[in-house]
Amino acid sequence: MPDKVALVIGAGDGLGGAVARRFAREGFHACPVRRHEDKLQDLCKEIREAGGQVTPFGIDARKEEEVVALVERIESEIGPIEVAVHNIGANVSIPVLEFTTRKYMKIWEMACFSGFLLGREVARRMVPRGHGTILFTGATASVRGRQGMAGFAGAKHALRALAQTMARELGPQGIHVAHTLVDGAIDMPWIRENFAKQIENLPPDGLLNPDDIAESYWTLHQQPRSAWTQELDLRPYCESW
Amino acid sequence: MPDKVALVIGAGDGLGGAVARRFAREGFHACPVRRHEDKLQDLCKEIREAGGQVTPFGIDARKEEEVVALVERIESEIGPIEVAVHNIGANVSIPVLEFTTRKYMKIWEMACFSGFLLGREVARRMVPRGHGTILFTGATASVRGRQGMAGFAGAKHALRALAQTMARELGPQGIHVAHTLVDGAIDMPWIRENFAKQIENLPPDGLLNPDDIAESYWTLHQQPRSAWTQELDLRPYCESW
Amino acid sequence: MPDKVALVIGAGDGLGGAVARRFAREGFHACPVRRHEDKLQDLCKEIREAGGQVTPFGIDARKEEEVVALVERIESEIGPIEVAVHNIGANVSIPVLEFTTRKYMKIWEMACFSGFLLGREVARRMVPRGHGTILFTGATASVRGRQGMAGFAGAKHALRALAQTMARELGPQGIHVAHTLVDGAIDMPWIRENFAKQIENLPPDGLLNPDDIAESYWTLHQQPRSAWTQELDLRPYCESW
Amino acid sequence: MPDKVALVIGAGDGLGGAVARRFAREGFHACPVRRHEDKLQDLCKEIREAGGQVTPFGIDARKEEEVVALVERIESEIGPIEVAVHNIGANVSIPVLEFTTRKYMKIWEMACFSGFLLGREVARRMVPRGHGTILFTGATASVRGRQGMAGFAGAKHALRALAQTMARELGPQGIHVAHTLVDGAIDMPWIRENFAKQIENLPPDGLLNPDDIAESYWTLHQQPRSAWTQELDLRPYCESW
Repeated sequence: MPDKVALVIGAGDGLGGAVARRFAREGFHACPVRRHEDKLQDLCKEIREAGGQVTPFGIDARKEEEVVALVERIESEIGPIEVAVHNIGANVSIPVLEFTTRKYMKIWEMACFSGFLLGREVARRMVPRGHGTILFTGATASVRGRQGMAGFAGAKHALRALAQTMARELGPQGIHVAHTLVDGAIDMPWIRENFAKQIENLPPDGLLNPDDIAESYWTLHQQPRSAWTQELDLRPYCESW
Repeated sequence: MPDKVALVIGAGDGLGGAVARRFAREGFHACPVRRHEDKLQDLCKEIREAGGQVTPFGIDARKEEEVVALVERIESEIGPIEVAVHNIGANVSIPVLEFTTRKYMKIWEMACFSGFLLGREVARRMVPRGHGTILFTGATASVRGRQGMAGFAGAKHALRALAQTMARELGPQGIHVAHTLVDGAIDMPWIRENFAKQIENLPPDGLLNPDDIAESYWTLHQQPRSAWTQELDLRPYCESW
Repeated sequence: MPDKVALVIGAGDGLGGAVARRFAREGFHACPVRRHEDKLQDLCKEIREAGGQVTPFGIDARKEEEVVALVERIESEIGPIEVAVHNIGANVSIPVLEFTTRKYMKIWEMACFSGFLLGREVARRMVPRGHGTILFTGATASVRGRQGMAGFAGAKHALRALAQTMARELGPQGIHVAHTLVDGAIDMPWIRENFAKQIENLPPDGLLNPDDIAESYWTLHQQPRSAWTQELDLRPYCESW
Repeated sequence: MPDKVALVIGAGDGLGGAVARRFAREGFHACPVRRHEDKLQDLCKEIREAGGQVTPFGIDARKEEEVVALVERIESEIGPIEVAVHNIGANVSIPVLEFTTRKYMKIWEMACFSGFLLGREVARRMVPRGHGTILFTGATASVRGRQGMAGFAGAKHALRALAQTMARELGPQGIHVAHTLVDGAIDMPWIRENFAKQIENLPPDGLLNPDDIAESYWTLHQQPRSAWTQELDLRPYCESW
């Protein structure tokens, strides 16, 4: 019997890695993906030490042929993708007057276009099976434009529209598509290094714990189809918004 | 040691009763509330037969003195209210030209004002303790006005504004306030009797299963404070929206 | 030939008075309404000196019988109400724990219930005629709950739901119902007295000019029915939001 | 004295052409733009016969160098761009499973990326002058994903995020950025040919009249900066939504 696969694109040190761990803990074969496979070594070690199964992949998620090949390879070599998570951010703030075309395109390709590629490819596998879960990670920029956010908010709005559209198209075919709105800073090394001062002033649990977010991703996958959630927000209790 | 209480106002045959059962199953002392206490007999029997604890109450949730007395009595006689759920609907469709003042007021008192009374009273108990969960049941009418919905959509919009405000005010004090948007028909006797024909045409699991919704209410209560959800939607996989 | 009437409920020193002046300038017989008729003397003088027609009324807009009598009297003694504007605010900030039932009810009656009464009564006159404009003044609190806003945001959310519902029900019958989201401080004596310091730091035109808002109300009334606006926002160019 | 220019990208037979005519009527030098300049001959003739000034341009609005060159040429040869309107649609419905990468990209480039290019280029000219108006044409797909809309809704959501971001960044610098949500079919030859049957069943004025929409664009440009609108919707009185 082949393994059930949880594919996580954008499996960094924060949320993506935590989601891979969470599903591995439930018996899924985790397939974390980053641009560079070697950056996934620590995560894989963690998962294996906890008794889980994991196969890391390094691809450029903005390239159609690489996403197609990734899904093909996982499905043929590891098992059916039961869960796919898109977790690639590109939270860069640039005033619109200074935005280069290259940056605008790159942010969109990372934060939105790769989501389209992933979503379409895994949906093509899931629909004939009549089940599967596709989760997109959103942000406050998914619902509001703000200073510096011409690129990031655009891509995130578009990703949310993709999630809504896919939910409407594929829900009746048994595919659960959901979008999370993660509002606040996630507790991860990069954040701790770059916002040390602000973090000092936070009360306990004032950063989003990636394992706690991952729990909600697991819950979304567990929901019976009679009562699916398409959108939920997640933020620390003390976050103002 | 006193029991932890789950108070459910609007504990009818559909969602409210299911929520009471769900929390009772986890060891909470369920306090289901309806206008007429005698209508809670079946629910209480079910909960007790499953090994749970339950005390039913009959009050008019639109009356301040009755809500105040209810909370006072539960807190002094049963135990601290850890979870409070507002689940009173009033989904009546009336064209605005024919809306009487009496109907408009009544809908608002049932679907919104009672939520204010409940929310305020339980929050006053929870805040000094630094924890507690308050859940409001919303509907599509919470976010959109539609034909016939002048009263119901108004009350539901106002209830959502209350939930958002309370979440912002009380979140930093440890109180988890969330609003669910329940979109679709719930599987319950009244619906099965009145929409028999439409239900025949639904695919399996095409109605919202109240136990499945209740599961999401339980999950909301379980969320660690580092990653709370303030709003989520719930609908059957096949619902168009 | 009877006069065409522009009825403005909540015709204070800011927006409401400006709207009455604006429509009077176009030949409408302005009927400004406040709780106390004597506070309308200056406004009436202004309108008359500019060559306009005006009849002031003092009523409690939360009382059904007074609203019904007002509409009856205007329609029989002055002329058909072509335009009705609801402009009653109640922007009070109170923490939910301290909110009295009396305050919560009063805010809702002022900011929402009076809108229902006005809307229903004038719609009953307009629908048989097949035309007419009903405008509701909203605020940021119409779309977002915030600290202290349990009452005001609730009422304003409910008023917006009323406007949406009425637009959907009555639009096809020729009645133009619109909701404005006025975001920012309006330039009026009360604001200048109470926020003198903050105003000093504003750039020129940093407050909402009531005459400029009134211009948008006039424009809404002028829109041909092939392209009606149901919602628009209004804020100073320098407002952050 | 150089002419004031109204630049309209996407100046087709429906809304774009009407906007060009409307601003030409007010003394603006209209610069309508389409992919193929020769398709602008009728529009130019109309404008000239009405006594207006017009210079047509044919460019591919998805190409940075062409947009940059267009703005440069207009500013140096004709006059300062006072108003820029982005009106390129790409309303194609394709199920997500069948969406090719080429189509997804093309829709995004047309409906969103060209808006970024136009917005940035004209803003760079307007900001030093401290005034100017930039208008983006949106659709229902700007705020909701629907079956078949993965590409179009994505692009339109992103365009709206761009408009919001630009409004927040550039408003304080005197640039009025607004987004319209045009909901319904516009009365134009292509619609009349392809939806003849549906149109037969519409009541009078049941299609959006492009001249009436154009009037709202003109009004947006006229708004004084103390009370700017950032978003408004436009739909026929009889449209259900």
